[in-house]
Amino acid sequence: MNIGVLNSGGDSPGLNAVIEGVVGAASRRGWNVVGFYDGFEGLLSEEGDERFEWLTPAACRGLRAKGGTILGTVNKGNFAIKVGVDQKGAIEPAVLEKTKATVRRLGLDALIVVGGDGSQSTALLLSEIGLPVVGVPKTIDNDLGATDVTFGFYSAVSIVSESLDRLETTANAHQRMMVVEVMGRHAGWIALEGGIAGSADVILLPEIPFSLENVVECIKARKAAGQREILVVVSEGARLADELVLLDEKTQGEVRLGGIGKVIAKKLEEATGIETRSCVLGHIQRGGSPCSYDRILGTRFGSYAVELVEKRQFSCMVALRGTQMTAVPIEEAVKTLKLVDPDCQLVRTARDLGVCFGD
Amino acid sequence: MNIGVLNSGGDSPGLNAVIEGVVGAASRRGWNVVGFYDGFEGLLSEEGDERFEWLTPAACRGLRAKGGTILGTVNKGNFAIKVGVDQKGAIEPAVLEKTKATVRRLGLDALIVVGGDGSQSTALLLSEIGLPVVGVPKTIDNDLGATDVTFGFYSAVSIVSESLDRLETTANAHQRMMVVEVMGRHAGWIALEGGIAGSADVILLPEIPFSLENVVECIKARKAAGQREILVVVSEGARLADELVLLDEKTQGEVRLGGIGKVIAKKLEEATGIETRSCVLGHIQRGGSPCSYDRILGTRFGSYAVELVEKRQFSCMVALRGTQMTAVPIEEAVKTLKLVDPDCQLVRTARDLGVCFGD
Amino acid sequence: MNIGVLNSGGDSPGLNAVIEGVVGAASRRGWNVVGFYDGFEGLLSEEGDERFEWLTPAACRGLRAKGGTILGTVNKGNFAIKVGVDQKGAIEPAVLEKTKATVRRLGLDALIVVGGDGSQSTALLLSEIGLPVVGVPKTIDNDLGATDVTFGFYSAVSIVSESLDRLETTANAHQRMMVVEVMGRHAGWIALEGGIAGSADVILLPEIPFSLENVVECIKARKAAGQREILVVVSEGARLADELVLLDEKTQGEVRLGGIGKVIAKKLEEATGIETRSCVLGHIQRGGSPCSYDRILGTRFGSYAVELVEKRQFSCMVALRGTQMTAVPIEEAVKTLKLVDPDCQLVRTARDLGVCFGD
Amino acid sequence: MNIGVLNSGGDSPGLNAVIEGVVGAASRRGWNVVGFYDGFEGLLSEEGDERFEWLTPAACRGLRAKGGTILGTVNKGNFAIKVGVDQKGAIEPAVLEKTKATVRRLGLDALIVVGGDGSQSTALLLSEIGLPVVGVPKTIDNDLGATDVTFGFYSAVSIVSESLDRLETTANAHQRMMVVEVMGRHAGWIALEGGIAGSADVILLPEIPFSLENVVECIKARKAAGQREILVVVSEGARLADELVLLDEKTQGEVRLGGIGKVIAKKLEEATGIETRSCVLGHIQRGGSPCSYDRILGTRFGSYAVELVEKRQFSCMVALRGTQMTAVPIEEAVKTLKLVDPDCQLVRTARDLGVCFGD
Repeated sequence: MNIGVLNSGGDSPGLNAVIEGVVGAASRRGWNVVGFYDGFEGLLSEEGDERFEWLTPAACRGLRAKGGTILGTVNKGNFAIKVGVDQKGAIEPAVLEKTKATVRRLGLDALIVVGGDGSQSTALLLSEIGLPVVGVPKTIDNDLGATDVTFGFYSAVSIVSESLDRLETTANAHQRMMVVEVMGRHAGWIALEGGIAGSADVILLPEIPFSLENVVECIKARKAAGQREILVVVSEGARLADELVLLDEKTQGEVRLGGIGKVIAKKLEEATGIETRSCVLGHIQRGGSPCSYDRILGTRFGSYAVELVEKRQFSCMVALRGTQMTAVPIEEAVKTLKLVDPDCQLVRTARDLGVCFGD
Repeated sequence: MNIGVLNSGGDSPGLNAVIEGVVGAASRRGWNVVGFYDGFEGLLSEEGDERFEWLTPAACRGLRAKGGTILGTVNKGNFAIKVGVDQKGAIEPAVLEKTKATVRRLGLDALIVVGGDGSQSTALLLSEIGLPVVGVPKTIDNDLGATDVTFGFYSAVSIVSESLDRLETTANAHQRMMVVEVMGRHAGWIALEGGIAGSADVILLPEIPFSLENVVECIKARKAAGQREILVVVSEGARLADELVLLDEKTQGEVRLGGIGKVIAKKLEEATGIETRSCVLGHIQRGGSPCSYDRILGTRFGSYAVELVEKRQFSCMVALRGTQMTAVPIEEAVKTLKLVDPDCQLVRTARDLGVCFGD
Repeated sequence: MNIGVLNSGGDSPGLNAVIEGVVGAASRRGWNVVGFYDGFEGLLSEEGDERFEWLTPAACRGLRAKGGTILGTVNKGNFAIKVGVDQKGAIEPAVLEKTKATVRRLGLDALIVVGGDGSQSTALLLSEIGLPVVGVPKTIDNDLGATDVTFGFYSAVSIVSESLDRLETTANAHQRMMVVEVMGRHAGWIALEGGIAGSADVILLPEIPFSLENVVECIKARKAAGQREILVVVSEGARLADELVLLDEKTQGEVRLGGIGKVIAKKLEEATGIETRSCVLGHIQRGGSPCSYDRILGTRFGSYAVELVEKRQFSCMVALRGTQMTAVPIEEAVKTLKLVDPDCQLVRTARDLGVCFGD
Repeated sequence: MNIGVLNSGGDSPGLNAVIEGVVGAASRRGWNVVGFYDGFEGLLSEEGDERFEWLTPAACRGLRAKGGTILGTVNKGNFAIKVGVDQKGAIEPAVLEKTKATVRRLGLDALIVVGGDGSQSTALLLSEIGLPVVGVPKTIDNDLGATDVTFGFYSAVSIVSESLDRLETTANAHQRMMVVEVMGRHAGWIALEGGIAGSADVILLPEIPFSLENVVECIKARKAAGQREILVVVSEGARLADELVLLDEKTQGEVRLGGIGKVIAKKLEEATGIETRSCVLGHIQRGGSPCSYDRILGTRFGSYAVELVEKRQFSCMVALRGTQMTAVPIEEAVKTLKLVDPDCQLVRTARDLGVCFGD
């Protein structure tokens, strides 16, 4: 058997662990593994322009501890799905033809695709041209309903938490407010769990629209009670209640992703009179050696993906349920975004810890 | 309402997070929380020798990030259960009387007990004298069947993993074998997950009896293949197949817990001829600031324990199932030790990664 | 003897270590220490509005490991020096009078001032009104000629280095360029040492004016040689050769401190065609538990400051020279900024490691 | 020019940084670098059994962040100096002949030896057979008088300090004493600086002989004052005052290096009645990614060693004096061990912080 593996979309700590798991599990079965470079693009290899390598356990030993991915990854590319007039998504025929040629040339029996919902949809389209696929979920935001946890998430949460630990000390020394923008466009899990771990005072999420008045009131009450430092964590995708949008003062345009923390910092500083600094954690959240949890989860995902290939459970995605691995049809898995339920026990815990969500 | 909280038995990173969760959740309900010092011993307070304090959210703010426990803890004490001639376990009557007096004096409505199976059994006996109890599981070994994970476990796994990362570099430089003894008397989860995360070559667990011959053969094969360093992780409670015991050379007595790593190191060095060093991680594994995962899990446990008090679900223990909190009757919960199943997917993953279990 | 201690200006990891050192050293001599809150402002205490506390070794135990400062700090305040028509700097008479009253009331024999050059100048003015002072240098930028190293600097360097380690992995995965802005308005030590430790490709400093052309050329050469990731470290105060200034596209005004990284990132992305992300490390650099080096240096500074009080070597500042502590007259110490010499061995080392300075 | 580089003796974090520095500096001069495997042994290469590789900057990029050494190292070997009847040390003639052959064959112009005093003495003997040498000091114990600091030392200190941070929390929770044995056979710098950084109560060093009575008295006083945890740091080479030796109870033999912590723990537990645990940090202290300080110092050492080759300052060793690099004749450098002076300012600082040395 020859199986392929690729990762696609934004990187997440644990990608290399998945690769090591796949290679180890395949090798124990006597199979070969080919790793494609830079997402699906590697499938467009041609003789003279090969964009893959055959991977051995010896070469992959210890890979689970390395950040990034030895295969490289791209966010978009030739395999982006285009929706036609018939409302059905498709990949360009020329791209599919070239892929078929690669599959034939390498004698590929199956492909393991590590990626988010877009990449898994692409994977399904490849299965239609005769390349059986197994999916491994990848979303650092942990926003996929089909699995309890995705790798990379707890590495990101750790970095947010460590950063808050740091910022707390300097905020306390200067009696400042710190506004920290973290990842999470649609789902606020990183802000929620990172904020709980890092003792945030305020957490603003896409799922719980907030009013600035509520936030200001909460902050003022804490200062009045003698608290020196205020820590505010903001998801990239946090939004105001009542469909209001935050406007950029200079441009009067809506604040784009990546800038909301700064705008909120300014407004809170004006409204409370507290000296405020803002900080965008950015790509630090997705970099570096994965935490133990992600090294373990990543290798489990990779190993189990090979089990699914062996059982011929194709067009499925591996998933964690409780302490067990399980398989979920990709088609269903990509449909359900896992959002923070404002009434869930985790949010209740946060409120118990005094967190203000601005609602 | 006045509720008490205490922790009992060996400490585990996240104890303070539980306390902060309890205090926050109670406070939001307008309840008071009293924290007892040094496990159940605090219940033996007397006027003039008070061994407790009333805890406020302000005083507990940020506690979740602190290692140890502000309440102190003891492993055994006056509340140890003694089994009588009728085969029933009991606490000494004088101790119970004194406890009743404290309960009356403080107007205690319920008690939250953070502890292992022994402590939870003690808690049940206290409920029989009219003090309703709710349990929070505490075992750094993660060996309780009733919950997917216990707090402290991933902090310990991280430390094992980091230590292996360190030892790998010096082992490689000197072409040495490193034998690392980690916690786990009855269950090998720390060795298994720590070993996977830290790229161990050999993992020896209580649940998978090993033969030295198998281990030696594996190590020799790796050296022959050109591998410079060998990393061996040993649970305290690892044991030989065929009921054999490891004998201490000097005393000819059976090797006690805490020394097995050194003995195995010596035997492997003799059998393989590879220069070997051993290392007992010991108490470093249970110390220090909890990792993010444990901060979050600990506060969730504490918060949910108060919910159970509110719902009057007494004699139950909080537990994590998947992503949800749930309640399990203490009586059932303490019965089932969660051991590593040699055929489970996690062990298969380890084997895929080349781990030798010596079986 | 009663001695006071205060810290003034921006916080730096190790401030608490200095305080613990001062308190311990004074206590061994049988002296009392009073810590003033929020910089010099604490000297303006009045009965009913006391802004200080008496510090004991027991209360300060372990303080050296804590970030921030238990005394709080302010950047500017009532003690800011105003330059009069006679070109001489002075503090407002009313402020001095109030200070004198506090000194008398507390029976203060000497004051230890932990602060930068501005704060040390203020300290000298206080010595003129009869309050003997000893200085402890504080500049996270390590830009003081009088001492080999200042505390806080290596903590900041560690954070820069760790951040680069993280960013390298994600930059590599996506073949991106990362531009990281770090502290350093006048002196580029943090960028230089952090950049060396974190394997930066390009380091831009205030002391070595750069041309974008040179930087672009270097980056292109590396990409051409097959390097996937490019790491650029920029001091806040980095500046272009030939007196050119970087202009903000929107406002056409000069780019202010705190925004230069983003501007450079944009220009480099345009010129090289490489996908680029920028990151401002900001206050994370000054937060969190000090690294071991700073804990040791901070306590040494504090302890030695008390030795100087004992020897009555007033109007001096403690300093590290090689492995030894020494005393330097404050007046001289504040005059010499320690800048990066473009020809020094550290810069040569960086060049040997392939660093491009854009000159 | 062709220059060789090798490291010899126990590994120390920063070895790879030195190698990267050497390769970068040589490459900028247009020189070639050959790295010899496993210390001096690599010099015994023969055609068909080559034990070296030519190193390029591209291959060494980022090496400074890696623990261990890509060249491998051995503690002793064929180059060990044997002292003859004439009291002069020499290397076996056959070994020297083989070395000469390698030097000729590779066209080696100079050799950079990274090692301790033994290795530097060997290096001097090689210079006598016509191979010019430059030394780079390597001692994780920081016990070389010729340089202010050696690389690896602050990495080790950090690990000791972090371990103490961890142990403090669990010791506090259980009211225990923790006895931690750290590296340092002849010089106690790691115990001293690690102990200061980690807030140790007691530090026992080779240079300050201690009496158990004094230590016991100090510990009892602290417990009496209400301190819950006691942290004791012991150098491997710590020794009792009055020429007394610690006897192993079982064997009645003198306690060897590597076991002193355990013996002291037992004696202190008996004398104080405090529950005590001991911990040997062991090889964890020399493993893992070097701290920023060591990455910088290592690359500086490597770069400067090449400068010395260029200036033909042979038989010298690079050294750090203050902030500057300098060269010291190897012959003098190896003579002076840098020991902790019991009256130095660093020890005074420790005493100010309440440290008991048992003297």
